[in-house]
Amino acid sequence: MEPKNNEEEWGKTAWEFLTQVRTQSPLIQCITNFVSMDLMANTLLSAGASPAMLHSLPEIPHFTPRADALLINLGTLSPSWLPSFNSAAELCHSLGTPWVLDPVAVSASPFRFNACLELLRFKPAVIRGNASEIIALSMPQHSTTDSTKGADSTHESTDAVEAAKLLAQRTGAIVAVTGATDIVTDGNQVVGARNGVALMQKITATGCSVTALIAAFVAVDKSHALDATVSALAVFGVAGELGMKEAKGPASLRMHLIDALYGLDEAALKSHVNITSLC
Amino acid sequence: MEPKNNEEEWGKTAWEFLTQVRTQSPLIQCITNFVSMDLMANTLLSAGASPAMLHSLPEIPHFTPRADALLINLGTLSPSWLPSFNSAAELCHSLGTPWVLDPVAVSASPFRFNACLELLRFKPAVIRGNASEIIALSMPQHSTTDSTKGADSTHESTDAVEAAKLLAQRTGAIVAVTGATDIVTDGNQVVGARNGVALMQKITATGCSVTALIAAFVAVDKSHALDATVSALAVFGVAGELGMKEAKGPASLRMHLIDALYGLDEAALKSHVNITSLC
Amino acid sequence: MEPKNNEEEWGKTAWEFLTQVRTQSPLIQCITNFVSMDLMANTLLSAGASPAMLHSLPEIPHFTPRADALLINLGTLSPSWLPSFNSAAELCHSLGTPWVLDPVAVSASPFRFNACLELLRFKPAVIRGNASEIIALSMPQHSTTDSTKGADSTHESTDAVEAAKLLAQRTGAIVAVTGATDIVTDGNQVVGARNGVALMQKITATGCSVTALIAAFVAVDKSHALDATVSALAVFGVAGELGMKEAKGPASLRMHLIDALYGLDEAALKSHVNITSLC
Repeated sequence: MEPKNNEEEWGKTAWEFLTQVRTQSPLIQCITNFVSMDLMANTLLSAGASPAMLHSLPEIPHFTPRADALLINLGTLSPSWLPSFNSAAELCHSLGTPWVLDPVAVSASPFRFNACLELLRFKPAVIRGNASEIIALSMPQHSTTDSTKGADSTHESTDAVEAAKLLAQRTGAIVAVTGATDIVTDGNQVVGARNGVALMQKITATGCSVTALIAAFVAVDKSHALDATVSALAVFGVAGELGMKEAKGPASLRMHLIDALYGLDEAALKSHVNITSLC
Repeated sequence: MEPKNNEEEWGKTAWEFLTQVRTQSPLIQCITNFVSMDLMANTLLSAGASPAMLHSLPEIPHFTPRADALLINLGTLSPSWLPSFNSAAELCHSLGTPWVLDPVAVSASPFRFNACLELLRFKPAVIRGNASEIIALSMPQHSTTDSTKGADSTHESTDAVEAAKLLAQRTGAIVAVTGATDIVTDGNQVVGARNGVALMQKITATGCSVTALIAAFVAVDKSHALDATVSALAVFGVAGELGMKEAKGPASLRMHLIDALYGLDEAALKSHVNITSLC
Repeated sequence: MEPKNNEEEWGKTAWEFLTQVRTQSPLIQCITNFVSMDLMANTLLSAGASPAMLHSLPEIPHFTPRADALLINLGTLSPSWLPSFNSAAELCHSLGTPWVLDPVAVSASPFRFNACLELLRFKPAVIRGNASEIIALSMPQHSTTDSTKGADSTHESTDAVEAAKLLAQRTGAIVAVTGATDIVTDGNQVVGARNGVALMQKITATGCSVTALIAAFVAVDKSHALDATVSALAVFGVAGELGMKEAKGPASLRMHLIDALYGLDEAALKSHVNITSLC
């Protein structure tokens, strides 16, 4: 994969991915937390994908093979959901279907940390977290001194570049660290995406939803997972910037963001994309 | 039941049902998928009904008898919820309380298909699905060649008229197939309702929510379940049409639809109703 | 605690609480019903708090000690969630972390009533319910003749003053009864808060969400739980009043309310606060 040299090339790539999602309408199975389900499904629908929130164990052998990509998000993890997580991830791994991991609040407990470690065995195509989550997941074991505050990060994304590279090298996944600057790496190349607005942090499940969008973008071209990830982050961030022009607070931003994602056109996307190769 | 001859009669019927829901505020128990709960509860509240999302098995013998109608939606089905589905449906059947089935993604797995078959024993008053779901449910057994794509339909509603009639005859239920034209049948009479806008498909849980609205309409006059079903579909569709006038995308449509449903007046409803007897 | 004498003092107190929440961003663990999760998380984020919807039993010993307050809401209660409710409440009790109980639809079943009774052993700092819920919970045992209609109240809040005082005296909790006038009592002092608009009743989970806001306010000053409770009710109610100026129905009110909560300034809060000592 050749690194893009400038924003013009990234704008073109992001637009191509969005167009493919709108055209192919990939089926994205989401096994995700309860808080995120509404916004995540609406994000996928607005981008042109087809979401399916099926999670139960007896259905996975029949349904997961039809999915074009799978998202696993550990937000409201409970022991009864773990077999589904593992079964769906393992099946995707064996079928070559790309799947994306969102290790929400991974350091909240050893139980959660170990659930993530177990999932890593099934080779996610992409891992997306905030800085605290990616740093915690890059560690060899659960750290009780970690300062993660629930689902919110206590680190800047730029503090997590080395952790992200390490995690990418160890797992073979593309690793994305979202924050003021989104960092995306394959363990070698590092790309920074600066789209989005700070107020998006005040809307629950925006992080979860952009991870689902990454799954939709990876679904249409799994051989370019880094490009897909960067593109999804940029598209969602640009929708946030466009939505912000109309917003008067977090709730109206949420609405305008989804409307903007649905209506996003080539000119607006290309003129707003803000992506740089960091190394 | 005498078939209505024209839109004027249907407009009058739909307005009478909505007025009854607003006046009586029927208690609607919803055992439904996680994705839909927020929009469904808000849909029922905006229409004047009183939603209750209680699902746990030990509560059903005490709570379900107080409900004026029950909705069962299989969206995020899991084995642990099945006993509640069956217990609540069986209780409603024995009490004469109308209940409505939403067989979301019925062909996703044999497990899900069989769960629906089992529920049919308890005689739902209404079954509402998209074309793929109604076609699949009208079959004697789960078909692995079926092309259902998650929760989205791969057929037009008009392709499902015969399947809907068959299913209505077999179960004794009113069967509604939603799509560009909503089809409603008692196995004999077939009514087409053409309210609504295409963008509603891009909002998650609109199908789930209109099924809950059908339950509220049936609750106020269970002896006219076909009229109640057609009326609920028309009312929700008209709210969507009115909301569309203000909307700039799916998220603002969702908001304006609910506002419009809450404020819907007689003149607006009657002037927008678009219902025809098809046979 | 000295009773405030007038609205000016209450306005000052409410503003100080809101400012503390925005500054400290307390971590609020919410074990709550599925319907409310989205609005509750967004309410907490908009007020400046940090929500965490973790509920699983193996995580509670590790995560709950980090929380600044806990909310327990019984809306979509199931037997499998009960051990988590009890474990988290017991842990907060032993650690001195304040926790708040929302006994949704407590009279729906003996199972639910008993679940609430068991939780009361762990000494919530605040109990918030509607009039029907507080009256039912003040009774020595589950009453099958109670007229609670799902999650909606069939009594006025002012009918529940004596029940609230009794419950406060018996449990040591601050008891809040929400309605047209919100009643707050420590078993002795009774305060009435009249902010908010009637249309908020037509938005699902507003009651659940204001209870979470109470938890955030108590988290920043647990030694003044009555002041915190009254202040949270006033702040949420004022946000509703400000939101109402822009709203055209329940769905737009929901959006404008959250935007208004996020942007609420000192002058607007102080000029709208409507609180009176009732005795």
